[in-house]
Amino acid sequence: MTKIPYKIFLSENEVPRNWYNLKAVMKEKPSPMLHPGTLKPCKKEDLAPIFCEAVIEQELNEKDKYIEIPEGIMDFYRMIRPSPLIRAYNLEKALKTPAKIYYKFEGTNTSGSHKLNSAAAQVYYAKEQGITTLTTETGAGQWGTALSMACAYYDIDLIVYMVKVSMNQKPYRKTVMETYGSKVIASPSNTTEIGRKILEENPETGGSLGCAISEALEIAMSTDNCRYVLGSVLDHVILHQTIIGEETKTACEKYGIEPDIMIGCVGGGSNFAGLIAPFMGDKIEGKNNIHFIGVEPASCPTLTRGRYAYDFGDTGKITPLLKMYTLGSGFMPSPDHAGGLRYHGMNPILAKLYHDGYFEARSVEQTKVFEAAKEFMRHEGILPAPESSHAVRVAMDEAKKCCETGEEKTIIFGLSGTGYFDLSAYSSYNAGTMTDYIPTDEDLEKGFATLP
Amino acid sequence: MTKIPYKIFLSENEVPRNWYNLKAVMKEKPSPMLHPGTLKPCKKEDLAPIFCEAVIEQELNEKDKYIEIPEGIMDFYRMIRPSPLIRAYNLEKALKTPAKIYYKFEGTNTSGSHKLNSAAAQVYYAKEQGITTLTTETGAGQWGTALSMACAYYDIDLIVYMVKVSMNQKPYRKTVMETYGSKVIASPSNTTEIGRKILEENPETGGSLGCAISEALEIAMSTDNCRYVLGSVLDHVILHQTIIGEETKTACEKYGIEPDIMIGCVGGGSNFAGLIAPFMGDKIEGKNNIHFIGVEPASCPTLTRGRYAYDFGDTGKITPLLKMYTLGSGFMPSPDHAGGLRYHGMNPILAKLYHDGYFEARSVEQTKVFEAAKEFMRHEGILPAPESSHAVRVAMDEAKKCCETGEEKTIIFGLSGTGYFDLSAYSSYNAGTMTDYIPTDEDLEKGFATLP
Repeated sequence: MTKIPYKIFLSENEVPRNWYNLKAVMKEKPSPMLHPGTLKPCKKEDLAPIFCEAVIEQELNEKDKYIEIPEGIMDFYRMIRPSPLIRAYNLEKALKTPAKIYYKFEGTNTSGSHKLNSAAAQVYYAKEQGITTLTTETGAGQWGTALSMACAYYDIDLIVYMVKVSMNQKPYRKTVMETYGSKVIASPSNTTEIGRKILEENPETGGSLGCAISEALEIAMSTDNCRYVLGSVLDHVILHQTIIGEETKTACEKYGIEPDIMIGCVGGGSNFAGLIAPFMGDKIEGKNNIHFIGVEPASCPTLTRGRYAYDFGDTGKITPLLKMYTLGSGFMPSPDHAGGLRYHGMNPILAKLYHDGYFEARSVEQTKVFEAAKEFMRHEGILPAPESSHAVRVAMDEAKKCCETGEEKTIIFGLSGTGYFDLSAYSSYNAGTMTDYIPTDEDLEKGFATLP
Repeated sequence: MTKIPYKIFLSENEVPRNWYNLKAVMKEKPSPMLHPGTLKPCKKEDLAPIFCEAVIEQELNEKDKYIEIPEGIMDFYRMIRPSPLIRAYNLEKALKTPAKIYYKFEGTNTSGSHKLNSAAAQVYYAKEQGITTLTTETGAGQWGTALSMACAYYDIDLIVYMVKVSMNQKPYRKTVMETYGSKVIASPSNTTEIGRKILEENPETGGSLGCAISEALEIAMSTDNCRYVLGSVLDHVILHQTIIGEETKTACEKYGIEPDIMIGCVGGGSNFAGLIAPFMGDKIEGKNNIHFIGVEPASCPTLTRGRYAYDFGDTGKITPLLKMYTLGSGFMPSPDHAGGLRYHGMNPILAKLYHDGYFEARSVEQTKVFEAAKEFMRHEGILPAPESSHAVRVAMDEAKKCCETGEEKTIIFGLSGTGYFDLSAYSSYNAGTMTDYIPTDEDLEKGFATLP
């Protein structure tokens, strides 16, 4: 057998040219997105004022297993991809585990995370449609950064509504976006009706993702040639992220790697679903029996303690309704550091698969997550994002189990990004001031009470 | 001819196993390092209390053209290397240039720069010698971060003296180093005699690199099993950085790329010398006629306006004397943002080669540098470090010349790192508050007056 190198980089002609549409393979399809007014399944025309046509078609596509990536997007992917599949030889040695550990690392691009895979696609389609301005919201800033890069490349204007409290905490995220030419506005702002209303009621508010979404949507719907783009949760975003899994699968086939366990962190679900998609498709088709594990923070336990129900995607309750696992759009997660995982809902494809028993969900406490991150970085030389570190934690736990059982399991996990911009979290962990927070049943009930 | 991919990644068995020792090829050798007391050439035993034995041998080696990289260092290099050689197809298109532009990108590792190449080597040799603690200084923090990563991996203690004003400006750099387990001390400090003396004289001082070096040296020389490590300027550091050039040369040979121009930024010289070493060696041996350009900030014009003379490496005048281009160890550069290029001296190998006419030096103003960086990042999707952007500026200038002449020149430049941790500089450029500073002849005379 070929010796497995530390890092597997596919060559340019090995790089996959298709996204993988899980819905085409699923025997039972996820329940459709509902119009918030009529409560009937959304049609193309319902979504057209908000999203670009091409992504709406992708959102609703349940037929085509493979969707070809346009050459104009491949041009961008060639800059930022392929990402390496890394054999964690050093970590294995440190853990003294018989397990073989691999991770697919999406943090080598300037945006520092996997978000660029969908940003590039969405901006390309907008440009093709003649859209001149895009709007979006950002919390921690990873999505806004990725989208700013893509908008600079495709030469299209971008307005980012950034949660005010995040902007104050991470001023450099704003700088990166502005350096790429984006207009960054602290939300709530005076630029929208909803923003003005919120500011009138509560001038001192630090804002919220829900409010930022509402502002970005308002501008998109009231401006000519303007559309809104979202960085996770929706099915077309998942589709774009499947380039991660497609590359991983190609690399596995090239080197004869057969995963027993695949692990990813889950917030909205795009990183985890993107990684596992083609493997999950094979599992559905009876071609493998991989054990998939989605890892979420104990502080925001959407899958492990949430309800499978229709809910809004935003706090403002203006988005279409999605059938998903949810804690209720009014659920208030604690100020956990893994900002990207603090979402009340879950992508509908993943939600359906979880409901049907295709994967395990596991929740972990954040101090345990940072403990794992610090061990990982010593041996593997990469500073992982807090979000990604949730997957690191469980991968290490599974590898340690192999120490006991002696099983030589093959584990692949997604390392979705770096922690460059989240050093305040590491700082608080180093200082011993980080605490864990697990919502009580009462806390959850308050969230569920906001379900429609 | 093979089509050149966007990114050339060497496979693991193509990765070079040797460093390239330029001194072995040079017809006239650089003048020797002098003992500051006796003014005679330094011997091994003079340097042994400060540096590890293996690196001292490398520092003084003028015979061996290739020096094999030990397997224990290759283990580390496999984690962080190979770095990609990227064809700037998108930038070429944007500039409408007939030139072919390539860049060797050293910023994909967690430390964000090329510094890790020497950090790994120096820490490995220290560990082999039974050293238990290392000391160093850091200004902007790139070197301290790289060294912290290497010390965590090889399990050896590290004390970093960080210039106090830098620590206040970049608290997250400190966080990264601490997360890797290093002890970071603001300099000047109460932990050394020299620190206490300086604090007594000037309790409010923000510190300086010169002072931090002195403190790190004092601890190294007064502590058992402790040595000092340096991140640039010295010949052994250059040697370790030649892995950049060795990889670049292998990639060029594989794809039939023949550079006409090679460009790098120069501070202490390690990134530029590392990139060009094997190509320069060939030039010395009459095998090519590449035009090499070292780019420095107009605010710290060591090569373009400095003197070729013996000088101290530090402001405190306690290091051995090096024959180099220098502005005088007392030269005070302006508070320029490209921290890594604000050094009064230059590596002696590069200095000698420059003196003998083997390469061109060019100085550029920082606003022009950031202008180029912003154009580059739009098209290539990478946020470059301010230091590296000096090379970007000149590469773009040379490519634009080709637009006029129609020449299809092949340009390779070194992109030594990312700007993740230097966003305050971009912020000031975006706000239009960045200014240029060019020292007057009088300013330079003040520096030259501090020459020994």
